[in-house]
Amino acid sequence: MPAKIITLTTDFGLKDPYAAEMKAAILSICPTATIIDLTHEIEKFNIRMGAYVLASAAPYFPKGTIHVAVVDPGVGTRRRAILIKTKQSFFIGPDNGLLILVAEKQGLEQVYELTNPKFMLPKVSSTFHGRDVFAPAAAHLANGAKPEAFGPEITDVAKPSFAKAAERNGSLAGEVLHVDGFGNIITNITADMLTRQGIRDWLKVELPNAKLRLQFCKAYGETKPQEPLALIGSHGYLELSVNQGSASERFRSRAGDKVVVEAA
Amino acid sequence: MPAKIITLTTDFGLKDPYAAEMKAAILSICPTATIIDLTHEIEKFNIRMGAYVLASAAPYFPKGTIHVAVVDPGVGTRRRAILIKTKQSFFIGPDNGLLILVAEKQGLEQVYELTNPKFMLPKVSSTFHGRDVFAPAAAHLANGAKPEAFGPEITDVAKPSFAKAAERNGSLAGEVLHVDGFGNIITNITADMLTRQGIRDWLKVELPNAKLRLQFCKAYGETKPQEPLALIGSHGYLELSVNQGSASERFRSRAGDKVVVEAA
Amino acid sequence: MPAKIITLTTDFGLKDPYAAEMKAAILSICPTATIIDLTHEIEKFNIRMGAYVLASAAPYFPKGTIHVAVVDPGVGTRRRAILIKTKQSFFIGPDNGLLILVAEKQGLEQVYELTNPKFMLPKVSSTFHGRDVFAPAAAHLANGAKPEAFGPEITDVAKPSFAKAAERNGSLAGEVLHVDGFGNIITNITADMLTRQGIRDWLKVELPNAKLRLQFCKAYGETKPQEPLALIGSHGYLELSVNQGSASERFRSRAGDKVVVEAA
Repeated sequence: MPAKIITLTTDFGLKDPYAAEMKAAILSICPTATIIDLTHEIEKFNIRMGAYVLASAAPYFPKGTIHVAVVDPGVGTRRRAILIKTKQSFFIGPDNGLLILVAEKQGLEQVYELTNPKFMLPKVSSTFHGRDVFAPAAAHLANGAKPEAFGPEITDVAKPSFAKAAERNGSLAGEVLHVDGFGNIITNITADMLTRQGIRDWLKVELPNAKLRLQFCKAYGETKPQEPLALIGSHGYLELSVNQGSASERFRSRAGDKVVVEAA
Repeated sequence: MPAKIITLTTDFGLKDPYAAEMKAAILSICPTATIIDLTHEIEKFNIRMGAYVLASAAPYFPKGTIHVAVVDPGVGTRRRAILIKTKQSFFIGPDNGLLILVAEKQGLEQVYELTNPKFMLPKVSSTFHGRDVFAPAAAHLANGAKPEAFGPEITDVAKPSFAKAAERNGSLAGEVLHVDGFGNIITNITADMLTRQGIRDWLKVELPNAKLRLQFCKAYGETKPQEPLALIGSHGYLELSVNQGSASERFRSRAGDKVVVEAA
Repeated sequence: MPAKIITLTTDFGLKDPYAAEMKAAILSICPTATIIDLTHEIEKFNIRMGAYVLASAAPYFPKGTIHVAVVDPGVGTRRRAILIKTKQSFFIGPDNGLLILVAEKQGLEQVYELTNPKFMLPKVSSTFHGRDVFAPAAAHLANGAKPEAFGPEITDVAKPSFAKAAERNGSLAGEVLHVDGFGNIITNITADMLTRQGIRDWLKVELPNAKLRLQFCKAYGETKPQEPLALIGSHGYLELSVNQGSASERFRSRAGDKVVVEAA
């Protein structure tokens, strides 16, 4: 039998005991679960960043992995709690757009609303569904509960309007999805889009605070230290980088910035 | 047989290898232990914050869990190392008040001083008892060693003078226990105290740098984004919050601040 | 059979999913591995700090532990990927000096270049060998693959020129290896060197921004709070500290600083 892996993606940080309480809730129900922190450092309430990070990492986990994600500004209000089954895995969290990006990428099969109190902690607080609703659901699922036992199937999942890059004649207009810990600027422009628009070798890039001409490289180390470059990152998106430096600081750019790219 | 869970609560941070060395010491003695980080981000030397965080999270762990906590400004001096057995679990760490809050909450049974060198690493440094004394004790306990084998029973545990909120006629005078990663201001005022003093619906709150009139809500999302509110947090304490914002920044408040609450 | 422990030491931080993707790659190949984060907070590209932290923590892990370390400014260029077998454990990472300090300390036996694509992910990116090359190698090794199956044995491992402290007549000239999360200044001067030079009780210490006269203590708590002191830290190196304070802030010192010590 495969290991039961449960991953956690939250904006709780590691200073507070919130992530540990989710683990406690899981282990109380399913003591043999293997719990992996995907990250707890999603920017507070930044659903888009959570969706991006989850979609980046989830494909590398074994089939059947259960992913719990909590970036949940609407906790305690009427937003629904959901369980999504895809061809590859399970996703549990709030119905606010956090889960749907990765679920559609993997092939969405069913969505269930979490309404069955049997799969929640005895006392559900109105401020911490991560511990009281989502973590216990993951643990019960790991124990073999059927997805349809958690609540009614629903078909009207909330879909966020995360921008898709626009392709024009020879140019691409997208935006910055995420700035990683190295200061790499990760955009929503894919390798395919660049190929379709005939962009290669050198790129003209326009950010709110910088106009750049960047070499299109395969690896950070292809330019000299502190020199900027463009490349396709390990998740398939166009990244603007500085070799051994921070592109985000250098070009004063952050998540949400518009970015226009064309051949140079 | 239940899984042997060992949790770690320290002020070591994650930049240094100290937390990992504790895990190494545990796994060298008890390779099957499930180790859970409660948090390593307690403020350096802030025993009160450590005591609060440990007391908040410990109840969610299964019966028999072994909790190791290290916020230990007196390491290498004559402060004692102790093992506490409660009705629900075990606590291991320095005898400086860090463990006693949660132990009394769970029902303290016995306290033993850790003096038996058989349950320590062969060479005990004078600066790092987390790795050399506390982690090995937890691992030996997980392996089945009896609490009374670790050293003599003691009855004069150090008790910190963490303030208890004072109840007057219709008003409560407490203090800020902790500011969490969301900027929520967590006080030592409980739901029971508010009920006894007839405080509900609206609260007048006085902090060192702010006088507030706050709605008493059930969930953060009940007010508009960026609006302040009061609620009972998931651990049963009065929290002062800003929906999707930081109450701590807005009201310039931090751990240790006095707080007075009355009906508005 | 002993538990298969794999540790991770990187400069990826915990904000991004990179560390989690390494764990996903490991668990996909070896679902029963016990994965321990040594740290992901090595300063970006600081090979020396990575080497020091790894060398400090590795000795505490059980025999046979597999250590993966990734501080890898040359990823995607021609630097080699290597697997080192020592008397005590295994080390996997880039051939840039990160692994050799600890390997020589433990007794280096063989070094193999990682060239066999059978032990890599099917698609190797040019930016993330942690996930695509090093993590899978560790998992296959945990599954029982022989070290010599990973690629050819090599003998010309890259050796960094990390400074060794110089001993003169009664004085020691070394440098700051690392500043830990408490602000302790950790030097490359060992207890043996101090003994050989007859330095004890009181030390004269010269840093770029401070000239000090420090008491040589056994524990942080031997001086009053906020008073500076010197001691041998838990890894055997001379540390300059402030009891319950930050020596690094007080003396404006950081990794790489020169330090001269003599008897006072």
